Amino acid sequence: HTGSSHAPPPGIYRRELQVEGTLSMYGRYTQELGVYAKEEAARLRDGGVRDGGGMRRNTSIRSRAADLLEYEKDPCAKCQLCASRCQKFLISRVGEDWIFLILLGLVMALVSWVMDYAIAFCQEAQKWMYGGLDSNMLLQYIAWVTYPVVLITFSAGFTQILAPQAVGSGIPEMKTILRGVVLKEYLTFKTFVAKVIGLTCALGSGMPLGKEGPFVHVASLCAALLSKFMAALFGGTFMNELRNTEMLSAACAVGVGCCFAAPIGGVLFSIEVTSTFFAVRNYWRGFFAATFSAFIFRVLAVWNQEEETITALFKTRFRLDCPFDLQELPAFAILGIACGFGGALFVYLNRLIVECMRKQKTINKFLLRKRLVYPALVTLLVSTLTFPPGFGQFMAGQLTQHESLVALFDNRTWCRQGVAEEFDYISHHHAWKHPQVNVFITLILFIIMKFWMSAVATTMPVPCGAFMPVFLIGAAFGRLVGEIMAAMFPDGIHAAGSVYPIVPGGYAVVGAAALSGAVTHTVSTAVIVFELTGQISHILPVMIAVILANAVAQALQPSLYDSIIRIKKLPYLPELGMGHHEKYNIRVEDIMVRDVRFITLNSSYRDLQEMLLTGQLKTLALVESRDTMILLGSIERLQLQSLLALQLSHQRRLEYLRLLAQDNGTQDHLPSLATDSTPSSPCTHTHVNALSNSNARQGVRFLVSTQQSVRLSVSSTVSSQIAEWEEQQLDEQVEFKNCKIDPAPFQLVEQTSLHKTHTIFSLLGLDHAYVTSMGRLVGVVSLKELRKAIEGSVTVTGVKVRPPLASFRDSGNSTNVSEVTELHKLCILVLFLFFYWCQQIL
Amino acid sequence: HTGSSHAPPPGIYRRELQVEGTLSMYGRYTQELGVYAKEEAARLRDGGVRDGGGMRRNTSIRSRAADLLEYEKDPCAKCQLCASRCQKFLISRVGEDWIFLILLGLVMALVSWVMDYAIAFCQEAQKWMYGGLDSNMLLQYIAWVTYPVVLITFSAGFTQILAPQAVGSGIPEMKTILRGVVLKEYLTFKTFVAKVIGLTCALGSGMPLGKEGPFVHVASLCAALLSKFMAALFGGTFMNELRNTEMLSAACAVGVGCCFAAPIGGVLFSIEVTSTFFAVRNYWRGFFAATFSAFIFRVLAVWNQEEETITALFKTRFRLDCPFDLQELPAFAILGIACGFGGALFVYLNRLIVECMRKQKTINKFLLRKRLVYPALVTLLVSTLTFPPGFGQFMAGQLTQHESLVALFDNRTWCRQGVAEEFDYISHHHAWKHPQVNVFITLILFIIMKFWMSAVATTMPVPCGAFMPVFLIGAAFGRLVGEIMAAMFPDGIHAAGSVYPIVPGGYAVVGAAALSGAVTHTVSTAVIVFELTGQISHILPVMIAVILANAVAQALQPSLYDSIIRIKKLPYLPELGMGHHEKYNIRVEDIMVRDVRFITLNSSYRDLQEMLLTGQLKTLALVESRDTMILLGSIERLQLQSLLALQLSHQRRLEYLRLLAQDNGTQDHLPSLATDSTPSSPCTHTHVNALSNSNARQGVRFLVSTQQSVRLSVSSTVSSQIAEWEEQQLDEQVEFKNCKIDPAPFQLVEQTSLHKTHTIFSLLGLDHAYVTSMGRLVGVVSLKELRKAIEGSVTVTGVKVRPPLASFRDSGNSTNVSEVTELHKLCILVLFLFFYWCQQIL
Repeated sequence: HTGSSHAPPPGIYRRELQVEGTLSMYGRYTQELGVYAKEEAARLRDGGVRDGGGMRRNTSIRSRAADLLEYEKDPCAKCQLCASRCQKFLISRVGEDWIFLILLGLVMALVSWVMDYAIAFCQEAQKWMYGGLDSNMLLQYIAWVTYPVVLITFSAGFTQILAPQAVGSGIPEMKTILRGVVLKEYLTFKTFVAKVIGLTCALGSGMPLGKEGPFVHVASLCAALLSKFMAALFGGTFMNELRNTEMLSAACAVGVGCCFAAPIGGVLFSIEVTSTFFAVRNYWRGFFAATFSAFIFRVLAVWNQEEETITALFKTRFRLDCPFDLQELPAFAILGIACGFGGALFVYLNRLIVECMRKQKTINKFLLRKRLVYPALVTLLVSTLTFPPGFGQFMAGQLTQHESLVALFDNRTWCRQGVAEEFDYISHHHAWKHPQVNVFITLILFIIMKFWMSAVATTMPVPCGAFMPVFLIGAAFGRLVGEIMAAMFPDGIHAAGSVYPIVPGGYAVVGAAALSGAVTHTVSTAVIVFELTGQISHILPVMIAVILANAVAQALQPSLYDSIIRIKKLPYLPELGMGHHEKYNIRVEDIMVRDVRFITLNSSYRDLQEMLLTGQLKTLALVESRDTMILLGSIERLQLQSLLALQLSHQRRLEYLRLLAQDNGTQDHLPSLATDSTPSSPCTHTHVNALSNSNARQGVRFLVSTQQSVRLSVSSTVSSQIAEWEEQQLDEQVEFKNCKIDPAPFQLVEQTSLHKTHTIFSLLGLDHAYVTSMGRLVGVVSLKELRKAIEGSVTVTGVKVRPPLASFRDSGNSTNVSEVTELHKLCILVLFLFFYWCQQIL
Repeated sequence: HTGSSHAPPPGIYRRELQVEGTLSMYGRYTQELGVYAKEEAARLRDGGVRDGGGMRRNTSIRSRAADLLEYEKDPCAKCQLCASRCQKFLISRVGEDWIFLILLGLVMALVSWVMDYAIAFCQEAQKWMYGGLDSNMLLQYIAWVTYPVVLITFSAGFTQILAPQAVGSGIPEMKTILRGVVLKEYLTFKTFVAKVIGLTCALGSGMPLGKEGPFVHVASLCAALLSKFMAALFGGTFMNELRNTEMLSAACAVGVGCCFAAPIGGVLFSIEVTSTFFAVRNYWRGFFAATFSAFIFRVLAVWNQEEETITALFKTRFRLDCPFDLQELPAFAILGIACGFGGALFVYLNRLIVECMRKQKTINKFLLRKRLVYPALVTLLVSTLTFPPGFGQFMAGQLTQHESLVALFDNRTWCRQGVAEEFDYISHHHAWKHPQVNVFITLILFIIMKFWMSAVATTMPVPCGAFMPVFLIGAAFGRLVGEIMAAMFPDGIHAAGSVYPIVPGGYAVVGAAALSGAVTHTVSTAVIVFELTGQISHILPVMIAVILANAVAQALQPSLYDSIIRIKKLPYLPELGMGHHEKYNIRVEDIMVRDVRFITLNSSYRDLQEMLLTGQLKTLALVESRDTMILLGSIERLQLQSLLALQLSHQRRLEYLRLLAQDNGTQDHLPSLATDSTPSSPCTHTHVNALSNSNARQGVRFLVSTQQSVRLSVSSTVSSQIAEWEEQQLDEQVEFKNCKIDPAPFQLVEQTSLHKTHTIFSLLGLDHAYVTSMGRLVGVVSLKELRKAIEGSVTVTGVKVRPPLASFRDSGNSTNVSEVTELHKLCILVLFLFFYWCQQIL
């Protein structure tokens, strides 16, 4: 007798859309869903026939119904009897939250560290092979190219076979799951194994891929598995739904936190990326777990003698006195705006590649058949271009991501001749210094090549993220701007008193934060950057650049994660933005579906059956009568199915037959009926079969087939009587007494604005809401209608609805484009003027 | 015709409890509320009689009703006509959010800077007076003491006279306002002036008071006033309720951000302190405004030649290589736990002082009469004790908060003799170095004295916060621990390779973050500390200490702001915590009020009148009939009043009289009635007068007095007929057609758990919710019941409900104290063992 049995009936403010499907390739989600559903349905149908004509299934439905009835009985009496026991039990649970979070942090830190170790080992192995073969260029090339191709192909194949859900970043899926949608198979052990091993191989190959997004998924997997494990160990509390969501959001923070050893940034980033409304009371959970995880992650490095003490991952050594001058701020602002455009371009390019491949039918077919060819080809291309003796020499091809970042964040200037000689003490700098080519050319080539390479590489069907590559490109771009500034002002630009030279490394830090912020639409990359570098001296430039980059990127494109959500067609509600005045014009009555499916208090079982066979809604409205239409509540489909099943149950049928037999004195039919478990002919109603392509209709179909099997198994003399009995039963009025009704489904008024509807839907995680007028049901709004309205398909007054911060964006053919663009220009102009003014005054 | 006219009817998911009252002294809120309400009622009554027997009032009610009826008519047709105009208009508004935030940031930065300047000037003036009189100790003492006493007394008096709402921190009030409760007079220009001037004087006095809490209030005031200003300039959009809330939460971030020049920490702190559920889409607003504000704030310092470039407020210069060793972590953890206990003690002490003064009736009466005596006495005591040549010499009495903090965060060690000689280059260090007394004694005295002084000083009726004093005490405590560590390990405790000495300044930083985090129950003080010092090198110790301090403090006491909310009895919903398993046992049916006041579709106006005269609810439930009890919706009190007013209106009465006159042929009474504007005898129904101690009943009373006045003015021959007519009118059935009904008031089910109820109430900012069973109204739950249930007054199963993180707290006489304490000990033991293990292994 645990606390969770007192939990409220789920589904009132949680949505449980069970999306199943094998996610074969990036973006191939919805296409295969129908096919999969059909197969699944066929499997279930066969199984149903095999296990005795649905009888066992019928029993399970009935036992479930009995459970639900049991639930309806007052559990309070029972509860108060064992209240004291219960209480003690519960209090002993209180510490489990802490234990859970500590365990989660520990496990994730270990996973992160081991994975880093394995990745470093893989990269060392490649270098060793490459270095050992320096006598023969061809052999060297083959070694350089084969190694990543093998690793990526293995990663893609392994993931494909074990758990296709492990493909990609995982943040879009986590966002959807935390929204309340149950994505099956996304939080299983198989997926965990596939993700961890696939990710290690993918990163070990040295391709421009990141580990941040997948780490969010891995941490969530860890939390889900730990929950299950602890539930098995301690009992039911860990299965509670609300609690699981709380733990999952903490896990997301842990994922980012232990990936970058950035607890604060991790918490904020995970909130920004996955949540719409955040419960502040869950805040500490993420902080605690992420701090613990980051601590252990860095302590492991100390124990392994990699570090002397706990420090930042990419520690910088910028000077503390006057790290930047006020007059450099316009440069930082320009860097931020440029990064905003760059980020939008990245998201656009990434989506373009996926959509291009999907549209080209010949490519598409070929790639679908040979799934490992695409990653192999991409890897071959990328590694050929980065081959150090080849083109790679112009773009620091031999450096890993980590080495490149360390070099880019360096506090010395590269372009000035005098300082360049100091390069020798860390070898990484040589890569940027080509004897024939300027350091500017190297940087520009690096940025351009890495840009499209990252955009392409992240579309490969392996577990991978895009944060780290984008971060690296941003750092390189920032470095470029910094070097240009240093070349323009070789003595620094401090006006009064002491003069300090420009620090291009600071620009690299700013650029990294701005570009990654622009791609992910987050502000917290600023905090991540501080924690990564261990220095907060550039806080102001970083904040300015990140905010400007966000403003620009959000005006042009959705975030990378939202873009993937749209590509994968995951069920998610888009965001409403700040320019939401126009949403007051759209009201619920404009978007609602007026043709609501409902049942009345006077409905017969026949109505019920028809409703179940033709509709596909998860819940149905219950109204008083067809005339008054007063909404009494909503009933779940399952409940109605069990009602129908009870009415036509085997038990009642037997009873009727027994009565019949007593009347007729012929008892010889009963034994054959009672022991009837041999396979009987499957359902013959073709229209039912035709309709049965959805899982949700299984219950009804089984019911029909039960009727059939029972009907066929008794002798034909009785069958007509049974048919008559059935008809009679179906004509009876439905008895709702034993049925679990949600008496307070969410109701809206016709006048409710779209903005308010959106807020309520996202706050409560609603799936649908009824629209009533004086208690009378007049319509229904579901997530689908809302999404359409927000995305602008339904625009009553012709005003498009916009994403957050995108006050100036207008993707369609609106008439206001010119005004909007002008406003956009104006705003940027104002900012520029302001900075100019600042500069003038100083 | 603006967008806001399409906004949904307010009050559906916003609460509008109009709490009026003069907040005379700290904590004197509820006591005076009743008195104030009575006075207000008397004033209104007198006014009502004076302006023509309530006739004008009655008209205003009717015109309001007409407005509401206007609202009910479909605005869509009208809207679509001017849709294109509207659209253009709205799009030109889009940039206003930016402009608003920039203006807000600018204004707040200026306010903050000017205030800092004024405070510094005040403190300089005191020092100059004190320094100039060093020949005569007595004169010196008088100067030292008089100055703050005058300033504080002025501050208290000024605030008292102009706007008593400006007293105190303001964060509790902002938390309540952001919860959706309208606190009148808290966001007016008067309050702004009183708060700014009062705060400047209070801080200029040199008392241990902070400016952070008041700054949150000042920023909110600024935002509210700017909103009004821009609404006057541009039109209605700025008056939208949702938008105002968004802007207020951004303003809170600006307040903290420009106070400390800590944008990120400011945003996080304001979220933690004021919000329960945070909309991530509003996140950027706070970030942008706070960054801009902090930028301007620091730029002003640069322009004023105070700083060379933009840097942190309390810049530290700890070494970057190995800022702390892994083996120092247990010391940091102990520091964190001690700070947790200290924080809880501070909150307890603060509450104790207020409650003590309140209970002691003689003190209470005296203080109420002479309101300026209490602050003057407290100031006299504190400044006497800090008098530098007196006791102040042992506790660095002559230093201001800023100077003390700079000294405490210094990166050199004080206790070691060799380093102590370096003190001379910044004069502040001399204060800590007494010739006869050890630096440890100075620090301990400083901590103890400042601790109780701050707790007492923050109870003074002046605008003041407690964050900064607590921060300072924390820094001193951390310094003490650091100095002890440095004395214990004079050569540092690094085991392998190079040895670095201990940095006591780092301990000071950790202590400051931990103690302020413990008092306010926030984690984001860690971020504030990084931004204040400009160094993030101590991130891990700070995070560990802050989390441990929070865990301990939350287990023992509410946060300071929640404590003030309870003392002031502000309408606020307490938090549910993590140990919320037991809340699944309490269900809505256990706490709901079963005696719901309702009206039916068949109610007569007489029922309505009775309902309005006896009840005090803001909204009433409308059910179908007394038998079915099917909930149709809820009606606001105002609506019902206007319904009643319409039924018995002057107009209809006149019409009736005209009819009557036509029937009788006597038209001589009419002129006297039509021009009746002389004061008539006031209402004589004593029972109505007795009941009329609440504002909400004004409408009904005016109505009754209107009846009376009209009745008395006509000759007695007609009066009986009118009385009859009235009775007849009252017996008529209410016509709800023209009434604005909320058709979807929030409904809960009897089985809904307390946890879920709490979540829904806080998410939607509800005031009350009806409990229904199959559409039948069975009860009502309001914020009051919920608060009682959460605070443990109603515990059906005997389980107490706990605040966040307070898994181990049990403030009452529960039977589980022993278990709880054991668990508590166990948890701390586990942590200690872990750290011990860490230390052993290294």
